[in-house]
Amino acid sequence: MAVVVQKYGGTSVANAERIKAIAARIVKREKRGDDLVVVVSAMGDTTDELVALAQQMTDQPEAREMDLLLSTGEIVTSTLLAMALKHAGQPAVALSGAQAGIGTDHRFGRARILKVNPTRVRKELEAGNVVIVAGFQGLSEEMELTTLGRGGSDTTAVALAASLAAERCEIYTDVEGVYTADPRVCPKARKLIDASYEEMLEMATWGARVMHNRAVELGALYKIPIYVASSFSDAKGTLIHGGPYMEPTNKVMGIAHDKDVARITIRGVPDQPGIAASIFQPLGENSISVDTIVQNASVERLTDVTFTVSQQDLDGAMGIVTPVAKKIRASEVLADTHLAKVSIVGSGITSGLGYAGRMFKALFDAKINIELITTSEIRITCLVDEDKVEEAVRSLHSAFKLEKAA
Amino acid sequence: MAVVVQKYGGTSVANAERIKAIAARIVKREKRGDDLVVVVSAMGDTTDELVALAQQMTDQPEAREMDLLLSTGEIVTSTLLAMALKHAGQPAVALSGAQAGIGTDHRFGRARILKVNPTRVRKELEAGNVVIVAGFQGLSEEMELTTLGRGGSDTTAVALAASLAAERCEIYTDVEGVYTADPRVCPKARKLIDASYEEMLEMATWGARVMHNRAVELGALYKIPIYVASSFSDAKGTLIHGGPYMEPTNKVMGIAHDKDVARITIRGVPDQPGIAASIFQPLGENSISVDTIVQNASVERLTDVTFTVSQQDLDGAMGIVTPVAKKIRASEVLADTHLAKVSIVGSGITSGLGYAGRMFKALFDAKINIELITTSEIRITCLVDEDKVEEAVRSLHSAFKLEKAA
Repeated sequence: MAVVVQKYGGTSVANAERIKAIAARIVKREKRGDDLVVVVSAMGDTTDELVALAQQMTDQPEAREMDLLLSTGEIVTSTLLAMALKHAGQPAVALSGAQAGIGTDHRFGRARILKVNPTRVRKELEAGNVVIVAGFQGLSEEMELTTLGRGGSDTTAVALAASLAAERCEIYTDVEGVYTADPRVCPKARKLIDASYEEMLEMATWGARVMHNRAVELGALYKIPIYVASSFSDAKGTLIHGGPYMEPTNKVMGIAHDKDVARITIRGVPDQPGIAASIFQPLGENSISVDTIVQNASVERLTDVTFTVSQQDLDGAMGIVTPVAKKIRASEVLADTHLAKVSIVGSGITSGLGYAGRMFKALFDAKINIELITTSEIRITCLVDEDKVEEAVRSLHSAFKLEKAA
Repeated sequence: MAVVVQKYGGTSVANAERIKAIAARIVKREKRGDDLVVVVSAMGDTTDELVALAQQMTDQPEAREMDLLLSTGEIVTSTLLAMALKHAGQPAVALSGAQAGIGTDHRFGRARILKVNPTRVRKELEAGNVVIVAGFQGLSEEMELTTLGRGGSDTTAVALAASLAAERCEIYTDVEGVYTADPRVCPKARKLIDASYEEMLEMATWGARVMHNRAVELGALYKIPIYVASSFSDAKGTLIHGGPYMEPTNKVMGIAHDKDVARITIRGVPDQPGIAASIFQPLGENSISVDTIVQNASVERLTDVTFTVSQQDLDGAMGIVTPVAKKIRASEVLADTHLAKVSIVGSGITSGLGYAGRMFKALFDAKINIELITTSEIRITCLVDEDKVEEAVRSLHSAFKLEKAA
């Protein structure tokens, strides 16, 4: 029998009623004959409540104790769901991340999964159980409980799917799938039947409302098809997979946007070898994730280096970059937070003819100024004024006729 | 340096404020120079809330999932207390029962500690940490999380004290120590400076408000002095220990009473070998704990067998005993719940002259009828009318002049 791994997020298991509703869905699905492994998040506000308790103790809780504290949330959900299933006559067993064999490094708060030992899970499946696994957590070699950080439960689910050679991984959440743009911004946005891993990754920020890039990357690596759908309805979701395509499909599949952008520009940087490393190495060492980097062609051996970070990392990044800029004798450092990114995403569009031109034309027609342009294999991104970005999404959605399936 | 194990119960860590108050006490105590291991219970109502959640899932939650669920409560407290300590500048580390090396059998809901591996705790003490351990829980050889049932956190504390060869175990709770009688019933009750393990055990039910017999027995076995005191004040508590006495002290140390008594009498039992076993073996097999057993001398080869159980076990016991009584051709089975036990407790009193007589006289003077009498090494117990038991406690407390230290 095929193994299927499902994951239910926080809103899907927000309270006792929701957990019972999920149990009913699982019982129905189990009758279709697959071996089910179900990964759960903490109930609704549980994590926030635990964080609030910790903050009453100290303004700087240590990551190790925080992990031990937060890991209880998912364990509670897993036991309740197992109880609800057994009450409905479905044999089930709840396992902590440690019991499910999720082995991690010991970077508390943002641990990486090093290996999954699926022995116990397999044994429980063979015994006829639906196996409920507490997501977001693992055990280090030193017997320390760890949490996986952002996208943790999604990552648990995909990692388990990979280690069990599952047929697919199903992520159930409070949205019905992946759309051609954020439906809250663009009312004409259309739900996609499928998307490639790469396209899903590029849909970036609002895609992360659906599932975290980290889990998508893991799915791509192990070629696990990921089905994203709503736990609140039976509407068909979106299948993310490697695709049957021999060649890129060469069309725009969606419009992504991201308002959490801060831009830093270092002006008058001497154009000499090693300069880029001297700027970006200390940022990396301080765990500041740099997004877009643009270096203009130099004029009189001086160049401008521009990059973007998330808004919460701006102060940290400025604190690191300002002394570096002084040391390399750059003329000044500028910061700007009133910007946002808008992207067209689709396999093959960068090499395809005319997509960039059509994008710039659509923004020009909408009187939206482009501050910066970057491209990847399957994405063209423009930095625009933050106040204009939603209009930009709608304009581009219309320009590329995404309201209709191709 | 001496190792001291402390335990703080549910009311002592009921909320964030209380946890911070306990942290302040620990910091003060740590400065006195002992190596501290601190066992904590779940915060106030946490366990009740988790049980309520489980009951929303099913009316018969399985013990295995229940244990995994409930064990989260103590983990939460342990992490919060560690955070509060670190915030106060005191190095500390929180360990789950599993991390602290508490190894149990796999009888979910009432696991027994099989062994304690103190390696990790020792390592953390050597590193200068106050070690906070989640009480009430352990790990079986099959990697299953278990809970220890009634008195679990007290038992964790004493077991850790034994394995660490601790100087003593301190149980902090919401009462100031062990009294000569229940102060709510007998206003003249006096707090004891010390008591022997055996005396503490015999103080039974209301003594269990202070700490559970199971933990006292473990303390007696490993000769761990147990200090019982309030976490809400600095008042001196009671030290429970093996005692320096070569001979029993031969005096009454306290009056115990217990209202949770149901009496079952099997009348007209044929007095022949094996009859007692045929009655009490099935009770034991059904985990019904039988307290007092009295068998009268037989008249015409017929005898009456009387025993007591807790009131919640009465229905179960009657269900087992009634068919047995029929089978052995006893004449009838009677049940009575309007009774209570009152005892005088003290080393050597049974062998000492006159204690029984003085007890019966005091009850007679108070016009309290005695329904049944039993004795142990250090206790004489009378079963009396439930409505009269509090008066009995006060009468006996006066008769033996317990309001004054001997």
